Amino acid sequence: MKRLTSTQADFRTEFKRLLADRDSDTARVDGPVTEILAAVRSRGDEALCEFTNRFDRTNVTPATLRITPEEIAAACADVSPELLEALEVAATRIESFHKAQMPTDMKYVDAAGVTLGMRWTALDSVGLYVPGGKAAYPSSVLMNAIPAHVAGVGRIAMCVPTPDGVLNPLVLAAARRAGVTEIYRVGGAQAVGAMAYGTTTIAPVDRVVGPGNAYVAEAKRQVFGTVGIDSIAGPSEVVVIADGNNDPRAIALDLLAQAEHDPMAQSILITPDAGMADKVEQAVAKELETLPRADIARASWDAHGAIITVRDLDEAAGLVNEIAPEHLELMIDSPQPVFDRVRHAGAIFVGRYCPEAIGDYVGGPNHVLPTSRTARFSSGLSVFDFIKRTTFIEAQAESLRKIGPAAVSLAEAEGLDAHALSVAVRLAKLDGAR
Amino acid sequence: MKRLTSTQADFRTEFKRLLADRDSDTARVDGPVTEILAAVRSRGDEALCEFTNRFDRTNVTPATLRITPEEIAAACADVSPELLEALEVAATRIESFHKAQMPTDMKYVDAAGVTLGMRWTALDSVGLYVPGGKAAYPSSVLMNAIPAHVAGVGRIAMCVPTPDGVLNPLVLAAARRAGVTEIYRVGGAQAVGAMAYGTTTIAPVDRVVGPGNAYVAEAKRQVFGTVGIDSIAGPSEVVVIADGNNDPRAIALDLLAQAEHDPMAQSILITPDAGMADKVEQAVAKELETLPRADIARASWDAHGAIITVRDLDEAAGLVNEIAPEHLELMIDSPQPVFDRVRHAGAIFVGRYCPEAIGDYVGGPNHVLPTSRTARFSSGLSVFDFIKRTTFIEAQAESLRKIGPAAVSLAEAEGLDAHALSVAVRLAKLDGAR
Repeated sequence: MKRLTSTQADFRTEFKRLLADRDSDTARVDGPVTEILAAVRSRGDEALCEFTNRFDRTNVTPATLRITPEEIAAACADVSPELLEALEVAATRIESFHKAQMPTDMKYVDAAGVTLGMRWTALDSVGLYVPGGKAAYPSSVLMNAIPAHVAGVGRIAMCVPTPDGVLNPLVLAAARRAGVTEIYRVGGAQAVGAMAYGTTTIAPVDRVVGPGNAYVAEAKRQVFGTVGIDSIAGPSEVVVIADGNNDPRAIALDLLAQAEHDPMAQSILITPDAGMADKVEQAVAKELETLPRADIARASWDAHGAIITVRDLDEAAGLVNEIAPEHLELMIDSPQPVFDRVRHAGAIFVGRYCPEAIGDYVGGPNHVLPTSRTARFSSGLSVFDFIKRTTFIEAQAESLRKIGPAAVSLAEAEGLDAHALSVAVRLAKLDGAR
Repeated sequence: MKRLTSTQADFRTEFKRLLADRDSDTARVDGPVTEILAAVRSRGDEALCEFTNRFDRTNVTPATLRITPEEIAAACADVSPELLEALEVAATRIESFHKAQMPTDMKYVDAAGVTLGMRWTALDSVGLYVPGGKAAYPSSVLMNAIPAHVAGVGRIAMCVPTPDGVLNPLVLAAARRAGVTEIYRVGGAQAVGAMAYGTTTIAPVDRVVGPGNAYVAEAKRQVFGTVGIDSIAGPSEVVVIADGNNDPRAIALDLLAQAEHDPMAQSILITPDAGMADKVEQAVAKELETLPRADIARASWDAHGAIITVRDLDEAAGLVNEIAPEHLELMIDSPQPVFDRVRHAGAIFVGRYCPEAIGDYVGGPNHVLPTSRTARFSSGLSVFDFIKRTTFIEAQAESLRKIGPAAVSLAEAEGLDAHALSVAVRLAKLDGAR
């Protein structure tokens, strides 16, 4: 963990180093992924089952690729009523927020008499990738599937690997709550290939979303164009801005909640209160003595964690814009000025009683957020990932007379004569009709 | 050109073949592009100038990479007043539409007392790629730069290759009208690399947009993640739905306006009137005798063009949804029912006096649209490419008491104890305070 003070002489250098310290190139897996995708594209189900059985130590056939309604029901029966109720709270709130997020169509007539507008329509089909094993989070199933449903997507197919044939009951319960019933027991690049290109068993989808390992990320990158994809998630991060008026243990836990995800995660505390900085540092050390995932959290905190003492909250906001963090907590008395100054962050959690973990599960906004500084140019998952725009123009004769000649001039200047003529013949007809 | 009738026995087979006939894999250029990007990333301006001088037969140095204000002014002085006025008409209309497209922020308090919302913010910087030579379209400069300006992007850098050192006056005039003054005389993968990674001369941007050749497209694919990119354009297409009440020459020119872009372009006429089908076929042949770009247009029309005779307009709308065309013209009497049934199209042009070429230049909506059936899952360029969302949640003590316990349950079920504890310690504090 790095302790920095914004007044130290080499602060800019150290801060830049902090921003770059997770930029190392990830392992290149494009070769194997290209081969897997080509095999699935040409040999379909046969290749899909081969890879699945080899990597997941299973024995699936095209006939057993899809998880049956009976298996889903049996798995859900294993989930406690308390957890089902918690899933329900989460799902209801996620639905509600994403419904509020739906944009409206636009249509107007301008001064030239041209009708202009844009219309939103849902995608026909979406493929949802869900990681297997320890990284299988039911909350992520809700966060990916519910916005697709709210957007009006007609078909949602889900792929989840089942290493050694083991199903994850809570993942299936989350899928059921989100209305997903078409679920296949496949993972990795082969699952992405099956959803993108289609096989006999798995019909192709229009867009593939959901987190995955390096192979899944590379596969999504390679099928991009054939289908749409969501952003490719990198190591994630939190910035907590906290003043002196906080429980150091609560702040420490917020930092560790990020760190316990992944040794590559990054947790940064920014505070104008040097005493709070000390207390949180001590609290983190204490929690690490008992935290079940202390090994992962400590690796992250030691390698990438930071506590930065700043002059004031305005300076803190400026640093946040350079970090462009996935998550930002504002644990301060009057958050509005900082909130207004922050331009780049995936999601902001405001108030001492709003830790980031609320947003991971039950807040309502999506927890799939831009990582690794990509909040500079991208957004979290939303209904916008599952709809697209069609623009339209409607013009009558009089409008064409007003705006057509400029189009003819520009088309001729670009050497596109059929373009120019397609407007000019209509203008000539109008002149003839006078 | 293929003539099809929806009642013919093998129609489905032939129609599917039509949809797939441009799917051949494009040449792989990932190897050379990877090398170019690595060189620009490690050696910066030096590599950028080397590649530029080699590929464009120029003699640029870091000091002359940027096109000077004097060069821009001199180039603009070469543009006729008529063309400058046409550019002005186009720019004004494009600005107006994209301003109308800007979304609004959202904020509300829900039943649990939680404040929820999302806020849109502009990107800090954008890089605009403009192709050189014959494919350098001033209209594309307007279509890419104006939405970025309207969105509020602070810095727009533009790269345009200048083969043999020749500047394109109209491209520079369009850039000036769009408010772009930071322009570099570089192109290809090396320009994309410079904008993504930055060099001493060219500061890095947050997102790279704009059309380009196979090298540019592959470079954008490879830098995706470091920066955002727009969609990668493939061969484009138009579908014209026309009834019997049209001037066959006008329809023929609309089809040829698409075909004259590229031998890979695809123009499809769908009509319920077999007589109109014959007349348009003849009119296309006649126009090809005199069209300046007849070689390109004929190659496209012969290889990929189609005229489909259908039973009725409802059937036409169904076929459009399978094609998901970049452009759709509705040259029919009562367009609304077809308009309502079409779910997948980049842009729709409604009315006999609204040919697609209007949208290319002066309509207002963007002419950068999803090609090659990607309108199934993606949208045209817009202000949404230059802004991003930050979601936020603000919760006070009472709200946490309502929604916190479900978060604790789910976090524990996912084995993320620091997540659970970060909520639980705050809940415990509330209970202690009672």
